[in-house]
Amino acid sequence: MDYERFFSADVPSFLRSPVREIFRKVDLQAICSFAGGYPAAVTFPTDQIPGLAAAVLEKYGTRALQYGATQGVPELRAAIAARYGVPVSQVQITTSSQQGIDVCSRVFLDPGDIVLAQSPVYLGALQSFRAYRARVDAVGEHNATSSIKFIYVIPDFNNPTGKTLTLEERKEIVALARELDILIVEDSPYRELRYSGETLPTLRELAPERTLHLGSFSKIFAPGFRLGWIIGPEPLLEQIYVCKQCLDLCPPVLDQYMACEFLTSGALDANLVNTIAEYKRRRDLMLDLLEKYMPAGTSWTHPDGGLFLWLTLPESIDTVALYDEALSAGVAYVAGSFFYPDGSHRNTMRLNFSFIEESKMEPGIKILVAVLAKALTNK
Amino acid sequence: MDYERFFSADVPSFLRSPVREIFRKVDLQAICSFAGGYPAAVTFPTDQIPGLAAAVLEKYGTRALQYGATQGVPELRAAIAARYGVPVSQVQITTSSQQGIDVCSRVFLDPGDIVLAQSPVYLGALQSFRAYRARVDAVGEHNATSSIKFIYVIPDFNNPTGKTLTLEERKEIVALARELDILIVEDSPYRELRYSGETLPTLRELAPERTLHLGSFSKIFAPGFRLGWIIGPEPLLEQIYVCKQCLDLCPPVLDQYMACEFLTSGALDANLVNTIAEYKRRRDLMLDLLEKYMPAGTSWTHPDGGLFLWLTLPESIDTVALYDEALSAGVAYVAGSFFYPDGSHRNTMRLNFSFIEESKMEPGIKILVAVLAKALTNK
Repeated sequence: MDYERFFSADVPSFLRSPVREIFRKVDLQAICSFAGGYPAAVTFPTDQIPGLAAAVLEKYGTRALQYGATQGVPELRAAIAARYGVPVSQVQITTSSQQGIDVCSRVFLDPGDIVLAQSPVYLGALQSFRAYRARVDAVGEHNATSSIKFIYVIPDFNNPTGKTLTLEERKEIVALARELDILIVEDSPYRELRYSGETLPTLRELAPERTLHLGSFSKIFAPGFRLGWIIGPEPLLEQIYVCKQCLDLCPPVLDQYMACEFLTSGALDANLVNTIAEYKRRRDLMLDLLEKYMPAGTSWTHPDGGLFLWLTLPESIDTVALYDEALSAGVAYVAGSFFYPDGSHRNTMRLNFSFIEESKMEPGIKILVAVLAKALTNK
Repeated sequence: MDYERFFSADVPSFLRSPVREIFRKVDLQAICSFAGGYPAAVTFPTDQIPGLAAAVLEKYGTRALQYGATQGVPELRAAIAARYGVPVSQVQITTSSQQGIDVCSRVFLDPGDIVLAQSPVYLGALQSFRAYRARVDAVGEHNATSSIKFIYVIPDFNNPTGKTLTLEERKEIVALARELDILIVEDSPYRELRYSGETLPTLRELAPERTLHLGSFSKIFAPGFRLGWIIGPEPLLEQIYVCKQCLDLCPPVLDQYMACEFLTSGALDANLVNTIAEYKRRRDLMLDLLEKYMPAGTSWTHPDGGLFLWLTLPESIDTVALYDEALSAGVAYVAGSFFYPDGSHRNTMRLNFSFIEESKMEPGIKILVAVLAKALTNK
């Protein structure tokens, strides 16, 4: 049967995640992977999970297993509202922060609309925007036009670059959004993972009237729960709520109560101290290794937090072309050009330092450097 | 601020669920509710949940808390494949059966497309189709046209009517789909809840080449887990997989492993025996009460399974107009006209018999009958 003709007009714009495609084919545990954005398993409160489940059923009974409110269970909404100092009415729980991006795309974007974004841009966001046939333009390289719907920004420890916006840059984003009179979608999954430097205000704090702030439990609890939240103005959340009825009726309920219990008991903050210490050590080791081994003409970002850093190699290097060879040699990364809508910047790569065990970091970097050295010699 | 101008062209087609709006305002425990499609809390394996969580962490370790494959964790896909006798490659796990409907809408529907459906039609499906600006036409009242993308059917214990398609009717649906050369979306959340009569083949079994079969754990495990599945041809699942990357990356992982453990250990089937016995008793009681109390000129369906039956009242009754009065009197139902795209059939209602405690059934029906009797007298 020819199935092609059944597909909607959006489908040809669907973009496969090259990262997910890697995961489909490769056992990440068997190689030195700097590829995914996976948290370290040692940061998960694994031993606490059965106890959390028991505590939740003790406290909420069968409510924890029944359908829940589309906005999220009231207790978790209240806990998020309290943590971030906003009214409960401004909190929508989402089934993952990725769903937050998707629902914003669905509620705001029409084919041909423009999203302004940092360049390079998070792949999952690029996928969502493209799937609604919107165009992604780099902030600063855009023409002011009425079809710009929002600016998408990861202000803290950006995926893929690891960079953090200064206060001045945050104010510029807000000024631009106000000048163009558009919304801001602030994607903030890493904000609580800061290893150095000072915490700066969120874009939502600077422009609450037009910002949808997306949060995530994936990096402060565990990604297997697929829970996030949106904080934003009620009139926007109201349409997101109606849309979410279609998406999945409500977020997973037992998971929400477990996240709520983990958060309100103080266990989340206690665990976060260890997570931050763990990742800070991995970041520092990674920076030391790059300093020690990387060939001349290579530069990289020095992130104050998050999971990633960004490597810029000599112009002659093509990280897409080198990828299979690197994988065969036992190391994985994500080619930087995947994060550019136009596929440019083929001499860059994203390196993740959260997932890989510390003992595999030096061997992994050495393999990577050998692959790069060979490519440089051949030029 | 004026937020309206930010919304996409789809947003005006978003349809709020009147059912979810009821839940937003009314404490269902405090009244006699025949409204929602909630399973009975007594059917949940509540006591087994902490043990399931512990068993899963014992067996799978931190994998149960990490990001998972977009298609679903391999173990659960294999368990579903084995249960329904299909290859694993034809199974996609979804974050709720509602997501299954949404992703099919997203992958197949363009504005102006037509979905053929039984009339009346499940509200959550109607919401999804409308949100993509597709039109819903009743099977049998359609004109053959190339913009018909699929037939949406709940063959077993339909929501809202409780009706089950005969084998002959199933064959007619399949013949129509083949004649029009369109897909079939078979929504099958209630199939395992049969209280009488013979199990008939699924539409997928009759037309595997063109059917997407949507299953759900909500009625055989617990809806708080938000887990479902799609069984269908690989070329269709492949695009659904790419789409799902944008939606939420992957279904909740711990929940998937818990569902898998519940299923493969045999606990699901053991629990299902009790669930079926419980619901059969409630259905029988409901039918007895309707027989005993309903005024002349009222008829209702006699479902062989599922959660609902459908009441047709004398023409003079308007169940939408009566709704607030009924609620004030302490009883909730869903007006039948909500399940018709054109809002017709205002003398019908959907009654759910799974959620309400048995002790509240007779008082609830008596309140409902009193409200109806008053309305009939006033005419």
